[in-house]
Amino acid sequence: MTTVEFERSSLALGDDIRAISILGATGSIGASTLDLIKREPERYRVESIGARRNAAALAKIALEVGARHAVVADPAAYRELKDALSGSRIEAAAGEEALVEAAQRPADWIMAAISGSAGLKPTLAAIERGATVALANKECLVCAGSLFMRRAADTGATVLPVDSEHNAVFQALGSGDRADLKRAILTASGGPFRTWTMEAIKAATPEQALRHPNWSMGPKVTIDSATLMNKGLEIIEAHHLFSLRSDEIDVLVHPQSVVHGLVEFRDGSVVAQLGSPDMRIPIAHCLAWPRRIDGPAKRLDLAAVRELTFEAPDLNRFPALAIARRALETGGAAPTVLNAADEVAVAEFIAGRISFPAIAALVEATMESAAKRDLLAEPTGIDAALAVDHIARSLARDLLPEIAVKAS
Amino acid sequence: MTTVEFERSSLALGDDIRAISILGATGSIGASTLDLIKREPERYRVESIGARRNAAALAKIALEVGARHAVVADPAAYRELKDALSGSRIEAAAGEEALVEAAQRPADWIMAAISGSAGLKPTLAAIERGATVALANKECLVCAGSLFMRRAADTGATVLPVDSEHNAVFQALGSGDRADLKRAILTASGGPFRTWTMEAIKAATPEQALRHPNWSMGPKVTIDSATLMNKGLEIIEAHHLFSLRSDEIDVLVHPQSVVHGLVEFRDGSVVAQLGSPDMRIPIAHCLAWPRRIDGPAKRLDLAAVRELTFEAPDLNRFPALAIARRALETGGAAPTVLNAADEVAVAEFIAGRISFPAIAALVEATMESAAKRDLLAEPTGIDAALAVDHIARSLARDLLPEIAVKAS
Repeated sequence: MTTVEFERSSLALGDDIRAISILGATGSIGASTLDLIKREPERYRVESIGARRNAAALAKIALEVGARHAVVADPAAYRELKDALSGSRIEAAAGEEALVEAAQRPADWIMAAISGSAGLKPTLAAIERGATVALANKECLVCAGSLFMRRAADTGATVLPVDSEHNAVFQALGSGDRADLKRAILTASGGPFRTWTMEAIKAATPEQALRHPNWSMGPKVTIDSATLMNKGLEIIEAHHLFSLRSDEIDVLVHPQSVVHGLVEFRDGSVVAQLGSPDMRIPIAHCLAWPRRIDGPAKRLDLAAVRELTFEAPDLNRFPALAIARRALETGGAAPTVLNAADEVAVAEFIAGRISFPAIAALVEATMESAAKRDLLAEPTGIDAALAVDHIARSLARDLLPEIAVKAS
Repeated sequence: MTTVEFERSSLALGDDIRAISILGATGSIGASTLDLIKREPERYRVESIGARRNAAALAKIALEVGARHAVVADPAAYRELKDALSGSRIEAAAGEEALVEAAQRPADWIMAAISGSAGLKPTLAAIERGATVALANKECLVCAGSLFMRRAADTGATVLPVDSEHNAVFQALGSGDRADLKRAILTASGGPFRTWTMEAIKAATPEQALRHPNWSMGPKVTIDSATLMNKGLEIIEAHHLFSLRSDEIDVLVHPQSVVHGLVEFRDGSVVAQLGSPDMRIPIAHCLAWPRRIDGPAKRLDLAAVRELTFEAPDLNRFPALAIARRALETGGAAPTVLNAADEVAVAEFIAGRISFPAIAALVEATMESAAKRDLLAEPTGIDAALAVDHIARSLARDLLPEIAVKAS
């Protein structure tokens, strides 16, 4: 199919049909997105779907939704994908470059849910062609936020936040003008260790840290929720999404995860978005934006919930939050280093090689080490950001023995 | 001053200066409005201020804010007003007609806070000339809501809700389209008797009923908060303001009065407005709308509030809520009768002549009596609504002895 043919078929779609692509189709965000699409198949045409390596699951989805193109990032999974799609008219592709090509294909709306640094280039490719990008990948904004938002402004791309907290702030902002915003408040469940003593937290096991009280998510983000690093990364995202300074972004611990985010306007009004902890709510908001569609999530019944509680985060027991905020305030590549060191630290913790407090300690030490080596200049592009990411991971690994001893 | 002169001086105002009038300037809503205006006097020019009869307080305000025109509804207060304003260039006037004339004078924005049926004609006069009307008077929508909203639609007048609950719904609606709204939820503090048993409520005194837990308001609305009739009247207001059916308007008891109102969209998102219980927040919203201004209210600190609780209203202990909803569902003049009977009942209760449960009983009996007499046809205009109001008060008074016996 040539580009001209793509454009024609895209134009032939009615106003009410949205051509969409889903990068990260086999993960939990992808599953929630597909659940919504399959409820009203007549509203959507699926252009391309992509995944890291789960070819069997991807092929099943591609056949189910009638995608035109399916791509696995891992070339080793190509054969399986190709075989599973044989007999269909669905194109199969593989490799990092194919994932970028998938993002370049003509979809009005792209779900960018490939996690980790693998999501950077495809997401940027969608932004470069001015698409509407539902952004679920944290790393784009944490590692190269200035670049992403600048390119979106230049190309006219729309970045819609999928994260429940940022989506809540985005929705609440609809009640006023950005110019009248005083601060945004991101809520945090507080994770499984919210009520634990410092002593108990020191001895926390991966199994304990992986038990998130409200949301069902992947292991990396679940551990990040336990350290509150996740909320720190979200502060950095909010900075880029809403052009807010660090001191304009607050975090509020709210164990019930019903209020997802709030904004305070200059007149004292606080507007909040609430909902059941179901990712289909923010995804439905992004999918239909600027309109809304019916959602299958359980309706929020506050009389049944009965009680919502709020508390300030404890930076002594959860230092990662303060470390992340410092990275944002330092600027340049500091958030890139933060993110890379955290990935190494979380993997080491899950593998049982470092303690829970060592996660924050390793991230902090890596940032100090990177600062000493003058590695914190603003990355000029994705490749520069990926280079910093690479170096930061090495630094973190080098620091591991020292941190393991200190934090034990 | 002729009309032409008025128009010229109005045109001479810069874009950022708002010519405003405040009807009900000496009450608590008036005081909050004036507090906001006095903080930024360069933004406002005060055209006219009006009050029922407190001439001394009104004259003091008029001199303070440099109003052009001051009017008391009660002609007996005219001399005192005139004398207090002598030597100034402020025009003094008195009488119901003068209040209507005050509303007709050229102000871009009018606070309609004259309580009771006395507020109907002046508020309609402001609507008739297509002004922006900040509506604090409940009776306009309860007694003649269809008429008010139809005239506003015809003249292009903007009706901004001042009541904290409706203002909250109005703000929350900014996050989406009216077409995507599934329901609106008005919160209620539950009043001073929220946790009382039926037996205890039966013996409640006016002193006990006048102790509102969160808001400082006039005696009528405070008693209405204790019976939940206030929330019933607000359901009727919400029906007119937002074109919602009775079954699309829910009430949620929320003792902390921090969440003022919520809307649920079809995708499952719930958007709420929160704030300290300070009427300057919704008034500031109306005053600056569609922009926002800095507000002096205490900032909401949810970590300090710590806990928000919610429960369904108990219609057994608080039957007034169900009676009001029935009035809305009956339609026509039923809400007009409801409101008139409630005014009589509350006055009798405050005077110690009927019990607390007799308030709802009297309202219900009056509605039944009015239905039997075929008095529930939709009022065709303000005078028809006022006539129904008048008859309903007589009916209520006639029923008093019977109710006093039954409910004791």
